[in-house]
Amino acid sequence: MARHPRDVQLTLTLPPTGAALRHRIAEAIIDAIRLGRLHPGDALPPTRALAAELGVARAGVVEAYDELCAAGYACARPGSGTLIAPGADAAAAAGAGSHVSDRPTPVPDTEPTTAAPTWDLTPGCPDTGLISPDDWRRAWRTAAAAPIHPRSAGPTGHPELRHALAVHLRRTRGILAHPDELVLVPGVDSALRTLAAAADLAGRDIAFEEPGYRNARRALEMSGARLRPVGIDADGLDPAALRDTDAAVYCTPAHQYPLGARMPVTRRADLLARAAESGTLIIEDDYDGEFRYDVSALPALRSVEGGREHVAYIGTASKIISPSIRLAWLLPPPALLQRVHDALRRTGENCCGVTGLALAHFIESGALTRHLARASRTYSARRAALVDALRSRPALMDRPGIHLAGIEAGLHMVLRLPDRADDDAIAAELGTRGIAVPGLGPYRTDAAGPRGLMCGYAQLPESQADAVAGAIADVVGRHLDR
Amino acid sequence: MARHPRDVQLTLTLPPTGAALRHRIAEAIIDAIRLGRLHPGDALPPTRALAAELGVARAGVVEAYDELCAAGYACARPGSGTLIAPGADAAAAAGAGSHVSDRPTPVPDTEPTTAAPTWDLTPGCPDTGLISPDDWRRAWRTAAAAPIHPRSAGPTGHPELRHALAVHLRRTRGILAHPDELVLVPGVDSALRTLAAAADLAGRDIAFEEPGYRNARRALEMSGARLRPVGIDADGLDPAALRDTDAAVYCTPAHQYPLGARMPVTRRADLLARAAESGTLIIEDDYDGEFRYDVSALPALRSVEGGREHVAYIGTASKIISPSIRLAWLLPPPALLQRVHDALRRTGENCCGVTGLALAHFIESGALTRHLARASRTYSARRAALVDALRSRPALMDRPGIHLAGIEAGLHMVLRLPDRADDDAIAAELGTRGIAVPGLGPYRTDAAGPRGLMCGYAQLPESQADAVAGAIADVVGRHLDR
Repeated sequence: MARHPRDVQLTLTLPPTGAALRHRIAEAIIDAIRLGRLHPGDALPPTRALAAELGVARAGVVEAYDELCAAGYACARPGSGTLIAPGADAAAAAGAGSHVSDRPTPVPDTEPTTAAPTWDLTPGCPDTGLISPDDWRRAWRTAAAAPIHPRSAGPTGHPELRHALAVHLRRTRGILAHPDELVLVPGVDSALRTLAAAADLAGRDIAFEEPGYRNARRALEMSGARLRPVGIDADGLDPAALRDTDAAVYCTPAHQYPLGARMPVTRRADLLARAAESGTLIIEDDYDGEFRYDVSALPALRSVEGGREHVAYIGTASKIISPSIRLAWLLPPPALLQRVHDALRRTGENCCGVTGLALAHFIESGALTRHLARASRTYSARRAALVDALRSRPALMDRPGIHLAGIEAGLHMVLRLPDRADDDAIAAELGTRGIAVPGLGPYRTDAAGPRGLMCGYAQLPESQADAVAGAIADVVGRHLDR
Repeated sequence: MARHPRDVQLTLTLPPTGAALRHRIAEAIIDAIRLGRLHPGDALPPTRALAAELGVARAGVVEAYDELCAAGYACARPGSGTLIAPGADAAAAAGAGSHVSDRPTPVPDTEPTTAAPTWDLTPGCPDTGLISPDDWRRAWRTAAAAPIHPRSAGPTGHPELRHALAVHLRRTRGILAHPDELVLVPGVDSALRTLAAAADLAGRDIAFEEPGYRNARRALEMSGARLRPVGIDADGLDPAALRDTDAAVYCTPAHQYPLGARMPVTRRADLLARAAESGTLIIEDDYDGEFRYDVSALPALRSVEGGREHVAYIGTASKIISPSIRLAWLLPPPALLQRVHDALRRTGENCCGVTGLALAHFIESGALTRHLARASRTYSARRAALVDALRSRPALMDRPGIHLAGIEAGLHMVLRLPDRADDDAIAAELGTRGIAVPGLGPYRTDAAGPRGLMCGYAQLPESQADAVAGAIADVVGRHLDR
């Protein structure tokens, strides 16, 4: 900047807008800088003189100069008046203002739309229409009436919800947990990332069901773990396939994802015994353990003797309420609890406080118990309707290699197809007929793995089961006859 | 298993509980296995015989056998009756049941409590008591009245909130964005992780304010980036310190965190020009850009010409509402938008759907504008009270090296201390006097960096400013006199 400021003759034209005077003056000066009529180092006219020239109140000019100084366009020098600052020319050329303008600009409000399928059998989508609107609204009303917390909760927060969940887990899953042992996370992905960090799983082997839950595989792989596929059979994961070098094993014993097997108690005990011996961490993803039909609930791995020490249990509101509310719970072995807290503090993955309170109230008021009973009855009937509709088509079901699997629990069953079937192509063709029903392709890493269609029936009304079964039989039949 | 099942004489004692008959029979049989009176391969008595012996209905025994088979304790063999399954002894010894028991167990409901400070000046905690309870409850009531979505929203979800935010950003921050360009994430940490993945920042240099926002540093470091500290001065980050090898630069131009500088428009234009030349991504964390006092809002970097192409803008509900609701928004350069969507689909980091609707309604109803006006007035008064209370203590403020910084905007100011001051020790001692006011230690990576106390005044009533200033003057004075 020049040591001696240059006085310049300045003729300003104020913008004819309705903005505040100081903004209009500042904008006019910035415009002069942009046009090269004012340069860094130039002195602005004395405020009194400029006010007289523009025919405005002097206070407006003083405020405009202050604003230009605050924005960095000018600087006030004692004895030298107000000078244009270094860099002001570049800033003006870039179109930067001295303040935030509130000029209205039309914002288009179009949203992209994708055609929804006529029948959505995508697994993992509960029928949220079964939730009592009264119970739901009451839960949120109660939550919104509570004082808003000024901080995020952190891993030891949400005491009301952790208490309610401890009771829920004991009642529905036989799991005894102190509320302080429970950790709330915004989803199963988050629970897995957190566990991987807490248990130092990066660079180590994790035995993983093959085929298995794609999102879980991705979350663990992104955490740096090496996933070792372990085949499953009609009883789920076989504990005999575990190796001493497995740092952890991921499994879905209540209803294997995707194939639907329920792991018998004998295998559960065997799995725990092996884990205890090798120090392997068992990750029990109990994603839909609340739902089963015509059979008793099998005890969660966590609830079996030795489970507390070796099992990290994961449950979620995704299936019992909706994935859209972003709440899951993690019950790590006590030895890992502090490290889980530390990991969550580092990532800041917390749950919404109001949502936590609403779910706590939904559980404590008995609304969740009522909802689960209602939803189980409905899903059981929808499942039975789809099973019957498929089984009533011998041209489909009598083909070798075709059978239904995983019908006793959860929110989906699998129509197993022969090994040579291109299940993803069949799914794609069903998609063109308005039926969203994924193949097993995305769930297997072994190209020679099992074939089938994932039939989520939670949102399929009984009256529609026959139409869906007919379309499936038709498309599968034509594909296999090619 | 033996090929010829062994018939065993079995005397069962049913548990005297009120559980269902089938559960009691199954438990008695598991108990017999556990005690070694039944072994794998043994045949269970015919259902009719056992029912007669126990004096119960046969249906209960049939159901119990079914349950034992479903749990894997037994298996039904055509022509051989029901046999105890291999592994049943280990499962029984491990205490596994055949079903989930609902025996009541007392769950203690104690929660750990930590003493809250008398005065909490921790920065970043807004005064949520300033939110109108009526507006708040109305927003959640409206959100809870909407149909519950059966899926999580994903990165292109929450159209209502993205539309409301686009209007909010234009009005308050001069940013023109189409709702489809906005991405909702559950926090600033999540926005930074997502950006790091989308822009491939792992293994590359990021220029990072020194001292700087600790959580942002951690989130970027955990994403694998190399953080290169860049000193800040009274105008914030100096664009001249950028290098062509910086893949990105992280900055807080509205109110530098922690020191409070407002980056002048001249520097903003310079920063954008350099970024455009070197291809550096500018990450603008506008964490509290909505709050400023007695000064005009400076244009967001994103709103300046060239900003759209080179700036990833991050805003958050943390300061304008509360961090507890877990909502932030990311406005990446258009060229990165698809990669941001992809990254979020991989991690599944979504926001709660009901919360999104509630915030959308809070904005659209005008409640947010009213709240921001009310909060700004209140924070401005609290800030002025604390500034006055500190400045009225010449024994503190006249010491060399002591001054107030960052008082024009945001929710905190910094009491800068001389270079030799141990700010963290001073903060610790103030903590013992019931004043939570962190030192700068956690924000600097350079041990020779600036000293100071972070004074968040958002929750400090004006009537308490003098007591707090007195304690600060006392503790600081005694530390510096040592």
